[in-house]
Amino acid sequence: MIHGKNYIGHSTSAQGSKTYQTFNPLLNRENETLFHEASEEEINNAVSLSKAAFNTYKELSGSRKASFLEAIADEIMELGDELIQTYCSESGLPEGRAMGERGRTIGQLRSFAHLIKEESWVDASIDTAQPDRAPIPKADIRKMLVPLGPVVVFGASNFPLAYSTAGGDTASALAAGCPVIVKSHPMHAGTGELVASAIISAAKKTGMPDGVFSNLNSSGIEVGQSLVKHPDVKGVGFTGSIRGGRALYDLAASREEPIPVFAEMGSINPVIILPSAMNKDGAEWAATYAGSITLGSGQFCTNPGLLLGLDGDEMEHFVAQLSEEIIKKEPSCMLHPNIIGAYEKNKAMATAQAGTDVAASYSEEVPPNFARQTVLTVNGKTFLENNSLHHEVFGPFSLVVKAKDMTELVEIISGLEGQLTGTIIAEEEELSNNPTLVGALQNRVGRLIYNGVPTGVEVCPSMHHGGPYPSSTDSRFTAVGIHAIKRWVRPVSYQNWPNNLLPNALKDENPLKISRLVNQEQTKDEL
Amino acid sequence: MIHGKNYIGHSTSAQGSKTYQTFNPLLNRENETLFHEASEEEINNAVSLSKAAFNTYKELSGSRKASFLEAIADEIMELGDELIQTYCSESGLPEGRAMGERGRTIGQLRSFAHLIKEESWVDASIDTAQPDRAPIPKADIRKMLVPLGPVVVFGASNFPLAYSTAGGDTASALAAGCPVIVKSHPMHAGTGELVASAIISAAKKTGMPDGVFSNLNSSGIEVGQSLVKHPDVKGVGFTGSIRGGRALYDLAASREEPIPVFAEMGSINPVIILPSAMNKDGAEWAATYAGSITLGSGQFCTNPGLLLGLDGDEMEHFVAQLSEEIIKKEPSCMLHPNIIGAYEKNKAMATAQAGTDVAASYSEEVPPNFARQTVLTVNGKTFLENNSLHHEVFGPFSLVVKAKDMTELVEIISGLEGQLTGTIIAEEEELSNNPTLVGALQNRVGRLIYNGVPTGVEVCPSMHHGGPYPSSTDSRFTAVGIHAIKRWVRPVSYQNWPNNLLPNALKDENPLKISRLVNQEQTKDEL
Repeated sequence: MIHGKNYIGHSTSAQGSKTYQTFNPLLNRENETLFHEASEEEINNAVSLSKAAFNTYKELSGSRKASFLEAIADEIMELGDELIQTYCSESGLPEGRAMGERGRTIGQLRSFAHLIKEESWVDASIDTAQPDRAPIPKADIRKMLVPLGPVVVFGASNFPLAYSTAGGDTASALAAGCPVIVKSHPMHAGTGELVASAIISAAKKTGMPDGVFSNLNSSGIEVGQSLVKHPDVKGVGFTGSIRGGRALYDLAASREEPIPVFAEMGSINPVIILPSAMNKDGAEWAATYAGSITLGSGQFCTNPGLLLGLDGDEMEHFVAQLSEEIIKKEPSCMLHPNIIGAYEKNKAMATAQAGTDVAASYSEEVPPNFARQTVLTVNGKTFLENNSLHHEVFGPFSLVVKAKDMTELVEIISGLEGQLTGTIIAEEEELSNNPTLVGALQNRVGRLIYNGVPTGVEVCPSMHHGGPYPSSTDSRFTAVGIHAIKRWVRPVSYQNWPNNLLPNALKDENPLKISRLVNQEQTKDEL
Repeated sequence: MIHGKNYIGHSTSAQGSKTYQTFNPLLNRENETLFHEASEEEINNAVSLSKAAFNTYKELSGSRKASFLEAIADEIMELGDELIQTYCSESGLPEGRAMGERGRTIGQLRSFAHLIKEESWVDASIDTAQPDRAPIPKADIRKMLVPLGPVVVFGASNFPLAYSTAGGDTASALAAGCPVIVKSHPMHAGTGELVASAIISAAKKTGMPDGVFSNLNSSGIEVGQSLVKHPDVKGVGFTGSIRGGRALYDLAASREEPIPVFAEMGSINPVIILPSAMNKDGAEWAATYAGSITLGSGQFCTNPGLLLGLDGDEMEHFVAQLSEEIIKKEPSCMLHPNIIGAYEKNKAMATAQAGTDVAASYSEEVPPNFARQTVLTVNGKTFLENNSLHHEVFGPFSLVVKAKDMTELVEIISGLEGQLTGTIIAEEEELSNNPTLVGALQNRVGRLIYNGVPTGVEVCPSMHHGGPYPSSTDSRFTAVGIHAIKRWVRPVSYQNWPNNLLPNALKDENPLKISRLVNQEQTKDEL
């Protein structure tokens, strides 16, 4: 039963007088539960508990922390149908998507548990002493990764499970040894509360310290701001809009002690379709992209919002095919009236720009909160001159840019803001003949895709999800995959430390049997 | 012959009308050469060249870039005695120190050359396709580190060679594949110019693109500000004061596209001396610390500015011994009149704080620009209540804090700003009996030292030089050692990319024979 209260560590609390409700976009009405926004006192209590929990939690072994993550996965499954129904009622997304996303969430938790159980991820490094070295002796120096401290996580509107309460940011921070305070996303506060209850239950069952996790409700920006400004918070994870992410980044950067903010934000994911591919498989790519643009009502951070090609007959033909295919798609429900409101507004703004033409736009009647897919076209020169066309229209929308030649195409790519992904559709020979194009695209993106679609972000070690700004605030880190743990840790060196008092990862006898860099050789041997 | 001009890529340039001179603190007079401050046009030209050079330089093989770094090392040695004499005339530091620092600089360049020649450092990772996976096939995804783009480096006043023109920041950025623009430190502009000439000469000899390196003169803050604000600059390295580093950090964070700034700034490097050590080896530790506090006139970022212990007879005795030892030290010349001016001012401010007592202060006459070492004492309560005592006094100075008990000592440690290092001097049993103290210290520092001194930063993989703010702006990265390269790179994934068009590090046949994570197993095998 959803109660609408905050979790301040292991305890529920509802001191605040401000309440709000979530919204069912399919039924076009509010859901019943009243959620209590966290008060300033509750925020401070959560951070205090988190700070105290850090000193205990950071010292736990990898296998203890792994058992916590695995218990979270189990407890989420235990929530059963209530979680799936709540998810659907707060997002308008279908049951299949809810179950798929739950699977992804569970998979992420288990993969971080697997990573930390083994413990080689702490990048242990040992340089032994050389007491006889001239002119000065060399001390024994050893290094490993340690957690930063309490981390605040802001969930995403478009991934109520996989990038929210127990999503990638929370899983990676807990795996790193950082307590987490979630600022619950107001659009799916019920889903968030259920997942929070699973985390708390797992924390109790596995003996984790009170404060290792808290979940704070909030419908506005104040709770998030207070958390990011709090001196005992040491890192921030965010998935959402550029405006929201940048505001948090600015707030964190203006603190007396600035802290790292990893914000994964907007991206229009440019796709370059070259003539060879249009000639050979134009119809197939048109159908594939009609699917990718409208997938999940276009509500993915990797949605292809920009298609680029060379003007000419192939391009005209491709646009005609794409237009035909995209109109065939059944419109679907967006997450929230605010989201479809923004979609309609941004689409209208793009359409109103001089030089844009509507190639295709679904025009039939649709139920409330359903998005009508649209494709615009524009020539390269107009696109280069009008920056407003470079911004994301979040939803089932794509802008096709027709460049007059390869030089203009490279100029367009080089002038784009940073992107999560960049795709090239071409025959291999045409790809290999255009290294400048590939080099320019690589400078602007975090992931290059050949002959595929950007939607679908595989969770694996080789996945990088995070590109140059504004697709993320720090392109050096990923939000997806096991390396996401690196956002929440820092190295610490131990010089001349007595062997028996060193952390296990650094002891001579290598009790954890992990892989370590010992005098510049990677090995699992003891010293 | 030092000409006082800027290096804009391979060419010298002196368009600006503003000039300045360096200062010889030993002779207490200005050196002769007039240095031409870079103009706005020269700054823009340097960045444009750097941007163009990036696209060529980033594609070079590891061994090509390594030959460049090795040539820089050779060319610096070729500068011979002129470099050493210029160094001494601009710093007041002795010849032995100059040669030692040159050796460190050369060593750093060669160790980065060694690292990138082998190329495993790019952290290549490969997850092969699973076309038959249900419900959706898995694409082939591969990942490696790529350089960020042009990097601006600000040299340190206190390391004219090892942390300046061709110092750790420049060496690591060039190794990563980033062109470098150095904002030359005005106190040692001649040393900087000579080293810049060596880099340019090495670039020409090894066929590096024009713009891979530039050196801009500046005596004020405007040139640095213009560089950090320039949209084509993608990263910043800085070593210096908190005020200077924070100003650059704020500037970079306020850009339309924020960029990473790694600033290594102030630190008072707390040293905790526990009773067991004072009893056993008090006299020896007093002599050792008298040496560490006055080493290089206290002008090291790891200088022990804060000694902490428990009040009592052992402490009184230790302070008396330390006072006796430190007075015996011969005062030495500081780097510049501005630096000794700040030292005298900050020392006077600390001395004027209520509750502080002078334990020892060198009172003999000294030549101009020589610093007189000083040790103050204060009790724990006063220190806790007066934050101004927590700030660095850059020079041969240390404050001894006498805590009333272990609880107060832990409170003091927990309330300190972030530090590069933290040291504990104790018998092993006393160390092992105080895990809370160790845990609290670990939370505040980047390196823990047992029974040693913080001065002396070994260059090795296990060295971490960079702690919580304000000792550095991002505790997740180091300024010393091969891992410093990680500041200037970001991962890029390649999805479904044709094997023959992948970078060599990611090709099936592993032509570079590097260590890679292939389907979650670390291996040097081909696929």
